[in-house]
Amino acid sequence: MEEKVNLAEKFELLGEPYSPGIVGYVNDYKLQIVKVKGEFVWHRHDDTDDFFLVLKGRLTIQLRDRDVVLDAGELFVVPKGVEHCPRADEETHVLLIEPRGTRNTGDTESPLMAAEVEI
Amino acid sequence: MEEKVNLAEKFELLGEPYSPGIVGYVNDYKLQIVKVKGEFVWHRHDDTDDFFLVLKGRLTIQLRDRDVVLDAGELFVVPKGVEHCPRADEETHVLLIEPRGTRNTGDTESPLMAAEVEI
Repeated sequence: MEEKVNLAEKFELLGEPYSPGIVGYVNDYKLQIVKVKGEFVWHRHDDTDDFFLVLKGRLTIQLRDRDVVLDAGELFVVPKGVEHCPRADEETHVLLIEPRGTRNTGDTESPLMAAEVEI
Repeated sequence: MEEKVNLAEKFELLGEPYSPGIVGYVNDYKLQIVKVKGEFVWHRHDDTDDFFLVLKGRLTIQLRDRDVVLDAGELFVVPKGVEHCPRADEETHVLLIEPRGTRNTGDTESPLMAAEVEI
């Protein structure tokens, strides 16, 4: 990484909700930001845990047995293999960390599947 | 991870600057928080990149050829093998992500070397 990343500035480069952008890497992990609004899709990642840190707004990570509600400054790691479905009522800004090549929709085929795009 | 992590609450559990606490894991990576005040020690990690996200305050990551100054909401990844020395004039709160077993002082022997402590 040559330059620091100002997350608020990077969010201005993002388009629609659920279209993530890669802002850097730590070894073979990608650092991704994403705007969340509305409901995503139920999915799981069989090979990796899934890191969520809320920077602005409120994110609800629906699990099959409960909801985890994250406000700004709160993080949660969905364990590998656990089904989850994020949603947000207001536009919410999230930092995601997961291995390169991890598909955003996990095991689920969906129009919300996004390519890995660096911003 | 059973419960979400509220980072501000976790910082209240930390002691002195440069005594990090582990708040969770993503696969074999540790999620650590640390208070920074004053100067750390020059070191490098030959086997891993080093992730810094500032949550409060201002962190200066001194590199041998320049300084990277991070305010809240800014992140930087020090590439593996690159010497660096963090410092902060005011108490600064930082989220660190690196593989489990990564020593905080890298290749440098120092009294600031810290054990891996979960909080």
